[in-house]
Amino acid sequence: MFSFELMKECAQTGARLGRLNTPHGTINTPVFMPVGTQATVKTMTPEELKDLGAEIILSNTYHLYLRPGDELIKRAGGLHRFMNWNRPILTDSGGYQVFSLGPLRKITEEGVTFKSHIDGSTHFISPERAVEIQMNLGSDIAMVFDECPPYPCTYEYAKNSLERTTRWAKRCQQVHNLGEQVQFGIVQGGAFEDLRKQSARELVELGFPGYSIGGLSVGEPKPIMYEVLDYTVPCLPKEKPRYLMGVGSPDCLLEGIARGIDMFDCVLPTRIARNGTVMTAGGKLVVRNASHADDFEPLDPECKCYTCTNYSKAYIRHLLKANEVLGIRLTTIHNIAFIMELMKGAREAIAADTFSSFKKEFFSRYYEGEQLEQNI
Amino acid sequence: MFSFELMKECAQTGARLGRLNTPHGTINTPVFMPVGTQATVKTMTPEELKDLGAEIILSNTYHLYLRPGDELIKRAGGLHRFMNWNRPILTDSGGYQVFSLGPLRKITEEGVTFKSHIDGSTHFISPERAVEIQMNLGSDIAMVFDECPPYPCTYEYAKNSLERTTRWAKRCQQVHNLGEQVQFGIVQGGAFEDLRKQSARELVELGFPGYSIGGLSVGEPKPIMYEVLDYTVPCLPKEKPRYLMGVGSPDCLLEGIARGIDMFDCVLPTRIARNGTVMTAGGKLVVRNASHADDFEPLDPECKCYTCTNYSKAYIRHLLKANEVLGIRLTTIHNIAFIMELMKGAREAIAADTFSSFKKEFFSRYYEGEQLEQNI
Repeated sequence: MFSFELMKECAQTGARLGRLNTPHGTINTPVFMPVGTQATVKTMTPEELKDLGAEIILSNTYHLYLRPGDELIKRAGGLHRFMNWNRPILTDSGGYQVFSLGPLRKITEEGVTFKSHIDGSTHFISPERAVEIQMNLGSDIAMVFDECPPYPCTYEYAKNSLERTTRWAKRCQQVHNLGEQVQFGIVQGGAFEDLRKQSARELVELGFPGYSIGGLSVGEPKPIMYEVLDYTVPCLPKEKPRYLMGVGSPDCLLEGIARGIDMFDCVLPTRIARNGTVMTAGGKLVVRNASHADDFEPLDPECKCYTCTNYSKAYIRHLLKANEVLGIRLTTIHNIAFIMELMKGAREAIAADTFSSFKKEFFSRYYEGEQLEQNI
Repeated sequence: MFSFELMKECAQTGARLGRLNTPHGTINTPVFMPVGTQATVKTMTPEELKDLGAEIILSNTYHLYLRPGDELIKRAGGLHRFMNWNRPILTDSGGYQVFSLGPLRKITEEGVTFKSHIDGSTHFISPERAVEIQMNLGSDIAMVFDECPPYPCTYEYAKNSLERTTRWAKRCQQVHNLGEQVQFGIVQGGAFEDLRKQSARELVELGFPGYSIGGLSVGEPKPIMYEVLDYTVPCLPKEKPRYLMGVGSPDCLLEGIARGIDMFDCVLPTRIARNGTVMTAGGKLVVRNASHADDFEPLDPECKCYTCTNYSKAYIRHLLKANEVLGIRLTTIHNIAFIMELMKGAREAIAADTFSSFKKEFFSRYYEGEQLEQNI
């Protein structure tokens, strides 16, 4: 059921156009996957996501394992049915989340012991258990359980963690029941060229149907991220999809696409929306600010989304100030619409051989008068 | 533009079927008005409300005066345009809210001085100012500024407050600019028959296009409320709409309809939804309870709403436990759908001369094995 069709490669950049076929439908790449951490993309219904053009969402293994539990979701008929989303779902492995717990977790070769952020109870996830949880969830694309090093980290730390990630990838592969779900490998190796190449080589030898690049967007300056992509992506097979994990700011999306990335996910668009910040053709806009109290124009006059068609900045600001749920619904709808439109524009530009100028033009407006952020 | 057509009166009860024509459309009565306190029915879009059959909503003068301010809403083109709701709106006068502030307010013949619940700032609302605010909001139906006594209260307190309410009603009438907006009078008088009759008589003499019954659902036992309706409604003109303020539990709605009430509003259905309680054909259900963790059935198998068509109790409970906005969206949709369906059923039963049996049958299932609540 799973396949990747590479439709076109850009002549000037590494950008590519593709189609990812999964048991729950086809995805046009490059694609951005909205994040539905707890079996819901915060504030949204599945129908709203579809209307905005979302073709796949990501959900988090760590969160769903803890609450409501992967066994319960299995009894519900799987995650698609549980949350009423009939398009593809990618699940992460929980690796990144448990490593982010810091002092609350302990890593051994066997797996990771950690304390729940909900009730402090102790849990253990091994590579085998991460596979089992994701099979219970029934996602279309599962990820191997990896060890994600922090940034910065020593060469030795990065080397040990990538080698463990390879060993764990093998264990994940061995227990994965080859049903309709596929499993992607995750390239680690920090910001060290030889280690990234080693990781990519070892994983490619294992023969996954797709490859993620992990351990980026963890605090490193953006130029470092781009450099890592520059030397890592060429080590991955052309005919397989490439997924850059945890990345979703407009500049990183376009820079990632230019370097041959096909898939992205990030909480950024939905998280900043809930804090009252929206993305517009002219850059970021903090609609919570008092300067918008009397502004009866839409968030982005060029945007055709439900929010911009029907509501003013003044009204949205009022809702946010009054802690009304509709406020964060409207900003979330707009930000997802904005990112979906950006990705659609990128795909169309790749198809028309104009991706370089598309990217340049977008940046000149989005970042006009605004310093390129160094961190996402 | 405003008119009320009395279509039919029930043979066995006081129930009646009507049509209220307003500048923003026609309302079929008896009608329940969802409450949009801060220019939004909490968690809902206008389109969702329309899909559920809401023909009119209520918004709160006190809240909108404080935030974002009635002048700002006027500059936005009025409340309909500000909040993107093009059907009728009824605004209360702010009277009930400021009196509910307790020690934070001081009443004189001139008006009420009170402190904002938002920032503690001092404000003054007179009957004239309450009219002006509602004209700025541009609601279809405005309410006179009344004094709402608590329950219980002395005969003297109730008498003084109803007489002040009449004097204030005159002042409201005098300054009301007879544009497209109409103004309803509010009957007070506590739980004293002669005072309710005096209040109704005095207001009817002033000749309002509609009459509310205020000061109920403020803590009195339900039989007292029904008794007040029994002797008050007959004092109101048949050809004018009658509105029972702040009432919205299923039993009170049907008992109110049986006594000739045409309009209702209440935060109850939406508020209990946000606390994880839903109304079903078989009675109230606390979906947050652990007993529903593994229950993959809909909230109400007989309900055709979006929530019941697509989601299980287990999923909704998960969302509520995880503080996900979609959870309270889904319970709110269901509860509004439930009340709208109840009102539709009541209208159809009045039309078919079966209202008595409709009411009896509804109660026998809704309250089966459940004690009739004595308070809303």
